[in-house]
Amino acid sequence: MTQQAAFEYLRHGQAPFFRLPLVDVAAPAAARYRGADVVLLGVPTDAGTTYQPGARLAPWALRRVSALVQSYHATSGVDVFATLTCRDGGNVAFPPFDRAAMREAVAGEVGAILGAGAAPLVVGGDHAVALPVLRALRAVHGPLAVVHVDAHLDTSGPDTWGDAWHHGTPMRHAITEGLVAPGQLYHVGIRGSWASPDDATLTLDAGNHIYFIDEVVGRGVPRLGAELRERIAGRPTYLSFDVDAIDPAHAPGTGTPVAGGLSAREALALVRALGGLRLVGADLCEVAPALDHADITAHLGAAILFETLAAMALGRIHA
Amino acid sequence: MTQQAAFEYLRHGQAPFFRLPLVDVAAPAAARYRGADVVLLGVPTDAGTTYQPGARLAPWALRRVSALVQSYHATSGVDVFATLTCRDGGNVAFPPFDRAAMREAVAGEVGAILGAGAAPLVVGGDHAVALPVLRALRAVHGPLAVVHVDAHLDTSGPDTWGDAWHHGTPMRHAITEGLVAPGQLYHVGIRGSWASPDDATLTLDAGNHIYFIDEVVGRGVPRLGAELRERIAGRPTYLSFDVDAIDPAHAPGTGTPVAGGLSAREALALVRALGGLRLVGADLCEVAPALDHADITAHLGAAILFETLAAMALGRIHA
Amino acid sequence: MTQQAAFEYLRHGQAPFFRLPLVDVAAPAAARYRGADVVLLGVPTDAGTTYQPGARLAPWALRRVSALVQSYHATSGVDVFATLTCRDGGNVAFPPFDRAAMREAVAGEVGAILGAGAAPLVVGGDHAVALPVLRALRAVHGPLAVVHVDAHLDTSGPDTWGDAWHHGTPMRHAITEGLVAPGQLYHVGIRGSWASPDDATLTLDAGNHIYFIDEVVGRGVPRLGAELRERIAGRPTYLSFDVDAIDPAHAPGTGTPVAGGLSAREALALVRALGGLRLVGADLCEVAPALDHADITAHLGAAILFETLAAMALGRIHA
Amino acid sequence: MTQQAAFEYLRHGQAPFFRLPLVDVAAPAAARYRGADVVLLGVPTDAGTTYQPGARLAPWALRRVSALVQSYHATSGVDVFATLTCRDGGNVAFPPFDRAAMREAVAGEVGAILGAGAAPLVVGGDHAVALPVLRALRAVHGPLAVVHVDAHLDTSGPDTWGDAWHHGTPMRHAITEGLVAPGQLYHVGIRGSWASPDDATLTLDAGNHIYFIDEVVGRGVPRLGAELRERIAGRPTYLSFDVDAIDPAHAPGTGTPVAGGLSAREALALVRALGGLRLVGADLCEVAPALDHADITAHLGAAILFETLAAMALGRIHA
Amino acid sequence: MTQQAAFEYLRHGQAPFFRLPLVDVAAPAAARYRGADVVLLGVPTDAGTTYQPGARLAPWALRRVSALVQSYHATSGVDVFATLTCRDGGNVAFPPFDRAAMREAVAGEVGAILGAGAAPLVVGGDHAVALPVLRALRAVHGPLAVVHVDAHLDTSGPDTWGDAWHHGTPMRHAITEGLVAPGQLYHVGIRGSWASPDDATLTLDAGNHIYFIDEVVGRGVPRLGAELRERIAGRPTYLSFDVDAIDPAHAPGTGTPVAGGLSAREALALVRALGGLRLVGADLCEVAPALDHADITAHLGAAILFETLAAMALGRIHA
Amino acid sequence: MTQQAAFEYLRHGQAPFFRLPLVDVAAPAAARYRGADVVLLGVPTDAGTTYQPGARLAPWALRRVSALVQSYHATSGVDVFATLTCRDGGNVAFPPFDRAAMREAVAGEVGAILGAGAAPLVVGGDHAVALPVLRALRAVHGPLAVVHVDAHLDTSGPDTWGDAWHHGTPMRHAITEGLVAPGQLYHVGIRGSWASPDDATLTLDAGNHIYFIDEVVGRGVPRLGAELRERIAGRPTYLSFDVDAIDPAHAPGTGTPVAGGLSAREALALVRALGGLRLVGADLCEVAPALDHADITAHLGAAILFETLAAMALGRIHA
Repeated sequence: MTQQAAFEYLRHGQAPFFRLPLVDVAAPAAARYRGADVVLLGVPTDAGTTYQPGARLAPWALRRVSALVQSYHATSGVDVFATLTCRDGGNVAFPPFDRAAMREAVAGEVGAILGAGAAPLVVGGDHAVALPVLRALRAVHGPLAVVHVDAHLDTSGPDTWGDAWHHGTPMRHAITEGLVAPGQLYHVGIRGSWASPDDATLTLDAGNHIYFIDEVVGRGVPRLGAELRERIAGRPTYLSFDVDAIDPAHAPGTGTPVAGGLSAREALALVRALGGLRLVGADLCEVAPALDHADITAHLGAAILFETLAAMALGRIHA
Repeated sequence: MTQQAAFEYLRHGQAPFFRLPLVDVAAPAAARYRGADVVLLGVPTDAGTTYQPGARLAPWALRRVSALVQSYHATSGVDVFATLTCRDGGNVAFPPFDRAAMREAVAGEVGAILGAGAAPLVVGGDHAVALPVLRALRAVHGPLAVVHVDAHLDTSGPDTWGDAWHHGTPMRHAITEGLVAPGQLYHVGIRGSWASPDDATLTLDAGNHIYFIDEVVGRGVPRLGAELRERIAGRPTYLSFDVDAIDPAHAPGTGTPVAGGLSAREALALVRALGGLRLVGADLCEVAPALDHADITAHLGAAILFETLAAMALGRIHA
Repeated sequence: MTQQAAFEYLRHGQAPFFRLPLVDVAAPAAARYRGADVVLLGVPTDAGTTYQPGARLAPWALRRVSALVQSYHATSGVDVFATLTCRDGGNVAFPPFDRAAMREAVAGEVGAILGAGAAPLVVGGDHAVALPVLRALRAVHGPLAVVHVDAHLDTSGPDTWGDAWHHGTPMRHAITEGLVAPGQLYHVGIRGSWASPDDATLTLDAGNHIYFIDEVVGRGVPRLGAELRERIAGRPTYLSFDVDAIDPAHAPGTGTPVAGGLSAREALALVRALGGLRLVGADLCEVAPALDHADITAHLGAAILFETLAAMALGRIHA
Repeated sequence: MTQQAAFEYLRHGQAPFFRLPLVDVAAPAAARYRGADVVLLGVPTDAGTTYQPGARLAPWALRRVSALVQSYHATSGVDVFATLTCRDGGNVAFPPFDRAAMREAVAGEVGAILGAGAAPLVVGGDHAVALPVLRALRAVHGPLAVVHVDAHLDTSGPDTWGDAWHHGTPMRHAITEGLVAPGQLYHVGIRGSWASPDDATLTLDAGNHIYFIDEVVGRGVPRLGAELRERIAGRPTYLSFDVDAIDPAHAPGTGTPVAGGLSAREALALVRALGGLRLVGADLCEVAPALDHADITAHLGAAILFETLAAMALGRIHA
Repeated sequence: MTQQAAFEYLRHGQAPFFRLPLVDVAAPAAARYRGADVVLLGVPTDAGTTYQPGARLAPWALRRVSALVQSYHATSGVDVFATLTCRDGGNVAFPPFDRAAMREAVAGEVGAILGAGAAPLVVGGDHAVALPVLRALRAVHGPLAVVHVDAHLDTSGPDTWGDAWHHGTPMRHAITEGLVAPGQLYHVGIRGSWASPDDATLTLDAGNHIYFIDEVVGRGVPRLGAELRERIAGRPTYLSFDVDAIDPAHAPGTGTPVAGGLSAREALALVRALGGLRLVGADLCEVAPALDHADITAHLGAAILFETLAAMALGRIHA
Repeated sequence: MTQQAAFEYLRHGQAPFFRLPLVDVAAPAAARYRGADVVLLGVPTDAGTTYQPGARLAPWALRRVSALVQSYHATSGVDVFATLTCRDGGNVAFPPFDRAAMREAVAGEVGAILGAGAAPLVVGGDHAVALPVLRALRAVHGPLAVVHVDAHLDTSGPDTWGDAWHHGTPMRHAITEGLVAPGQLYHVGIRGSWASPDDATLTLDAGNHIYFIDEVVGRGVPRLGAELRERIAGRPTYLSFDVDAIDPAHAPGTGTPVAGGLSAREALALVRALGGLRLVGADLCEVAPALDHADITAHLGAAILFETLAAMALGRIHA
């Protein structure tokens, strides 16, 4: 980091993602994201959380600690922010108690990003934010391949909680609304108990793949990554990363922890393994700062966002 | 505590409020609360929280630490659980993302308690739970005197967040729906910044009273209590206690903390000062266990519930 | 989870293990556990702790978070609570400062469980609770194979602390009282420093096996599991799981942490690897909630209990 | 708060003090603060801390939680941000290991603020930041009255730590450099142990006043405030507020806590009592976020900043 | 603090109480404490704790933070360590599971201190350590006046927990064994619920005094202190300070917290108010470091110890 | 542990490293360390920290928890404290704001240790303490092989922060001052983002080796250890261990955490793998107790120190 860059950051006293320029949020939608390759967009909501809430404050926490991240990814050999023009797009704002308004606002803002030719990197909020992102991407790119890293399948319906739009449901809608290409939804890191084998019926019947945590670990992340790249090939791809895919030891700051998940290293390697894909968008969800300790979940979340950007940059370089 | 009582509690491994018997929640509404004087009822929701959520888990936390409380209130000289037949009424259950369903379910369950001739002591959840409780009480007792202990007026409308039912709104509805008797709403412990003086217009125009924290402290809790008792006299009275009335040092486990509140001692004395009133119901809201440290907010919350029961018992004894 | 099951749990406001029915603790011993296959029994004591105490409150913490666990074990393909009739047996109650009374009460209650033909799943408390459980099991099943997962050998005598019954001693008694079959005590996860090589003399002279953590990891849990199953074969087997076998990163909530232990995943896999054995009882000890962060030790503990139940269910299915 | 104001804040995803506009930090010094009445300026340093460091991160923490503060001070009846044009001036940037550079940079930036006719409200950082602020103020306003709220006298010399510029020394320099007017330094909240009575010699010999915590409490904050206003009268006045003046229960997030300090209420009342003075600048120092719990110190710090602004606004109104 | 004193402390890397010299613990009892006026003695036990344990580690925590305390008590004008020759006497060592051995060892060591003409300042450990201290003092000084600062009466018998020696019982034994002079036991800070009015029968029948927290606060600590000094007059006096007398906000690090206690300031003032008495010994008990936050309970505990020493020094000066 | 050893430790109430004898710090330098093989030396400073400070208090925290470590290393079969005469050398003391004085004092004290024929095991403090240790070792042993375990290269210059002596710079000086033998600096565990590839130029141009975390894990610690032993052979070797080499899940208590590091097990195995080398000194730096949870970083740090001693003992045995 040059002294100039460091001092500029310190001088402002603000905390944009990765010390990036903030877009002019007051500009017309058509101009707002012009020239950007990737826009980081916060969605401060946890209105769809079934157990411990708190993810609404994640965008601020992730911005704050992301200031420690620099531009060069040493093991990939890519200068991320030199390769991609990245911007902090601010947050989506919406009436916080109206989840339909949230979905509409997110879809609209992501649409504006896509309209500018940029890719959205969405920072939740709970996982319910993934649905409107996928809808907006589907409208532009057609059905997507989705790499869904999570402890849970997120294909729940309204059976238990009388609601079809909470944070356990986005992949159900992604399947039933045709947002994912047939058989191109990959659930990675699944574990924990289910109500019954029927929990997996919807996604398995759609031809999708479940990689339980044991399989991820048993085969090793690199081989899993190779398989994903081969299966997905050139399809437009979305990465949806629920931080509870990671073991609670490495990511305590989340609301529905499940013992026995990915280590931080495996999580980062998994994202890195997507480097050859055509990533058209991504999200990181479910970081709950109030449950964190010493910012370890936030630091890991920022590292995942950086790996995602590096994977996008590699796609750009290799394209 | 007798060894028998202690061992019985330990043996069950459960944590009912104050080690009380649990009602038969499967019994018909008419029979469920029969014979009870007071029913403690949990409402596990924080769907109406504007800042840090987490109050949904308060009923379990308060039950757990309430096991340390015994029956005899030494300074009042009243044996609370010998004077009043108290029961743990369990929680109200409802689809967690449907706040209208919450209001309906709470109103229904409190109605059942009142139908059995008992008084509800409701344990939130966020402060949005107070509205349906007040509605149910109004239906039985007519317009109420309400002692509203809080850092905030809770008379917000939909202006800011586009929603009229969040945890900053119950007293608005209480006024506009005629749940409180004219001029009989007492806001105690108010502090912090407002948008404008208009924040108080609705309640002041209705003839209600605002006791800012400085006035509470300046006059002293006993004199304030005497004034409240005089003003309220024999009216049916509801105590609505938002734990953020208390200073964050004494009650860190809450979602919208405001510096400079009541001490724990003042909070307890305030409830004790209501001892001569005709308390027909009460609530304690906004305890957020994940933000607590060493259970100090939970222990204080349980002490407030016990003081409320003691005040009710005194009302019974003196009646 | 059906809405009915979820709401029933929420409605009661209590926290039985895994939302299971509580036995009638007031019923005569002969009837108390009738019809159960497995009884979860809390033993709230830490009177035998040598360093940081606090495990006395573990039964409540583990009950509370176990509510998130559902019935179907996806990777094993077993519906645990459909296969086994499980019950929350409450806690054992005893004068808390009388450790001999604890041992007697635990042995008695486990005896009652065994008398009903059920298997005990004991939730400590510190590890001193394992001895009376083993005694009761020995009386019914004869000498046992014991899989002892721990950072420590727990074969201490009175040399250091002038006491033969603290939480570092149960395996000494298990050997000297003949509770374990010759050579059938398997210490898994051992690490840290010792006073001298003599620390292992008693158990090695008895023909038992020490699997240091490096060996567990070097060979891999599945192969270790296979070896254990082969060595133990059809013997009645007891699993004694001290949560400090797990690395402090994954299980900070324990009183004698030792750096460098099992990961959460390895811990769960280790229990799963016992699936083919004839498990006649098990314990999970040394969870200290006050030292935990964000309940991660508690959630992991509940997952270990669920894996233990799944292993028992597999034994039932395969029997 | 209007929805527009709320959404604008949420939309940007940044955290300027009190949701205020950020000055153009790249503008020439002469233009940077033009039109402002008060500029909030962060100084992220703790290089002068003698015990637990961490105050370097306070400016970000205080900005973040200050978003909850609104404009109207209800008990004073003043609309703070309508009365005063306030700006977030960003932070001062300097080589972090060069404390002389810090002093120079802070004096320069405060000079620029004063040059624009604005008053600086400085947010430390440790208390060593007060010295350059006082120097810059002295250059413009001449010798000042200083209300120094602190547990410590901060008149140490190099005797103990071989350094004359650490956070325990600013008031020594303020006296010896003639930054304070004769006898116009008021130490408020002093307590704890000293090396010897000589600790107070320098400041007492200069005719200054020490208000030990017992005197503050014994006389009551309002009367103490009246005395300060009378003694200071129309002099240009500086408020230097070390958060460790407050009791560790109310402000745990600080590096040299001393038991038995001001309550949050007293701290706020103390600042309010300065309302009639001619406040030409102020600071709040020694908030250490990593030692805080549930942001209670940060929330209190933001409230103190707001009270300071309200006192400045009152001065403006009454002038 | 002189640089020499500071560096000497830093150089050793150890943490004796108040940076005092450690006695030669290996010296014969007769020589061990020779020349000391006061000996600080740790008793690392919590084997008598009824709820959350952890006080066994208090002596190390209190030693560690006491390093920040200096010698001169500014408001009393006494140089404590110049007036009294104070020593760190180390801890009492005993088999940790044998509470009778603890009592014997503590009584013996305190006897040795008294034999050297010094006063013991005992640092628990839970409150069960007070009994052997009182016994040893009684043997030398005859029946004592005891100022017992606590939330609880500590006059329990074996009724509830089947044990007569736990941390809720020392004052029962003090009364029944004649360790206190008739009517000279003063319980200060009592609050919380009781099983029945009978909880107070033993101590009231013995003519002792209960100062409920409300009375302490209502009358003010100085007047209460004056009354105590008048009632006790020249009697040999013991101060037994259970840290749970203090409000959990100010002292969260304790095992049986009771809401609504003394503030830190009141606690310190209360000890200071004993300055005129003939203090022949004192204890501070029930600090539980694992439940503390940011060491605030430990810092307060060290301040209480320092006030106790200052009160002893004043007694010496005035004698 | 014998009862005598345990009680002796408890009796003193102090916390020397591993319960070792403390040297006579007042003895002349020539005599101070006579007879010791290894001296543990604390350096309480964090004046060179770029992000979260706090490592100044590490020597006390590591001493405290090291009391749990015993003498026999079971998997290596070496009785560490019987093989090596180890001493707690106390801390180095210096004016805390003068980093040049720190370097001089540390170099001097380490020189005294070396002069006595002992090896220094230095406990930071931040990583800036490594430079003077290396200088002192170089003066005695000539250029060294250095195994540098860290997330960062620590070869920064003054470019960013305008200072050449902070905790990110020691390896730059080690290279440029010729403290390391050509090509004999091994950076192990490197990860995270860099400013540019130039970050590695200095060390790579000097022929040194960078083992990124992925390579460490991919090849496995044992094979990496074998390679290091082969490359280093009989050279005098220094181990410099920055605790942030370890994953934040396993070592949250550090100031510049980087996601994705070594597990505790790998960290311990890495040190163990150096067993065959000629270790002439070592350090452990960057433990920040205030950021720790439940002492897990401190316990791990103590275990690393013990492994280092065991590796030194093995060198002694095999020599």
